[in-house]
Amino acid sequence: MTETTDPTKEPQSVKGPRIKKGLVVINTGDGKGKTTAALGVLLRAWGRNMRVEMFQFLKHTGGMFGEKRAAVKLGIPIKAMGDGFTWRSKDMDRTQELAREQWENCKKAILSDEHDVIILDEFTYPLHYGWIPVQDVVDTLKNKPHMLHVIITGRYAPEELVEFADLVTEMREIKHPYREQGIKAQPGLEF
Amino acid sequence: MTETTDPTKEPQSVKGPRIKKGLVVINTGDGKGKTTAALGVLLRAWGRNMRVEMFQFLKHTGGMFGEKRAAVKLGIPIKAMGDGFTWRSKDMDRTQELAREQWENCKKAILSDEHDVIILDEFTYPLHYGWIPVQDVVDTLKNKPHMLHVIITGRYAPEELVEFADLVTEMREIKHPYREQGIKAQPGLEF
Repeated sequence: MTETTDPTKEPQSVKGPRIKKGLVVINTGDGKGKTTAALGVLLRAWGRNMRVEMFQFLKHTGGMFGEKRAAVKLGIPIKAMGDGFTWRSKDMDRTQELAREQWENCKKAILSDEHDVIILDEFTYPLHYGWIPVQDVVDTLKNKPHMLHVIITGRYAPEELVEFADLVTEMREIKHPYREQGIKAQPGLEF
Repeated sequence: MTETTDPTKEPQSVKGPRIKKGLVVINTGDGKGKTTAALGVLLRAWGRNMRVEMFQFLKHTGGMFGEKRAAVKLGIPIKAMGDGFTWRSKDMDRTQELAREQWENCKKAILSDEHDVIILDEFTYPLHYGWIPVQDVVDTLKNKPHMLHVIITGRYAPEELVEFADLVTEMREIKHPYREQGIKAQPGLEF
């Protein structure tokens, strides 16, 4: 069995040393699939008995999205801390405070050396809006355990974070049924 | 709880009718996250007790990737049928034959009306290389059960398929550790 995940690409040299390293991964862009791909990693890692944890920013603390339902069934810790922030949110101080509190939880988890994969879902937004200093995040990631993978999702990934990351993918919207056909987000598929 | 999945976007009108429809979704492009996002949907849908099934093309029939390990644990059917095709493959006739056989399995599943979500992983390659006629696929999708979501992953999605699909996302590689740092695919993260 080959480890080349893209069958149409010339396989990379398999003779070179395999560098083992936990990666900092960013899924950004205006398209779909940023959080969803992070969930796919969560599933794969869980399949390999790795220790995974997911922290969600902004999403409502008590929300029972599809991923939350799945995580509960799997016994994967998934912590949302937010008030369901949208542009309609009325108490922005509270929204920011919750994001900062959640970042403190993440920092502890990242530095604890008790995980193989940590997902910071929609973490780019509090960075983009300046609620959490990007430098604090980069400093924390610099001190992360060597083998820990950290996956960050959301639009507007700050440049300093992109520079520091190992793997950055932009999800680009090519065709979108909501605008084009008036179809709204579907349960299971998107939440 | 809002269903708007992107908190930074102006919420769409919640007054319009919710059109309920199973979507044809394509994750394409040269970046990471195409299969991984499909796995995320699989997890979400499983979390909502939806009936999901995944068909993998090209990947080795007996491969035990992270997703396969997870699916076995979850009781989700995930069928790989292939010989681990890469450019090194020696028996291309066999590779093509397996792809066509797998497509017949998919067709049956799509038309059976026994699923909520069906994933055709790396299905674009046999289409791109002309092993399976795109028109046959479009015709099958036209006849799919109304509420069934079908998710297709892989590079080089054929234009006719993109035109037919409801939701198309391109995963674009912004930064890639393998080329830049000589790091190879990591278990859990990518397979």
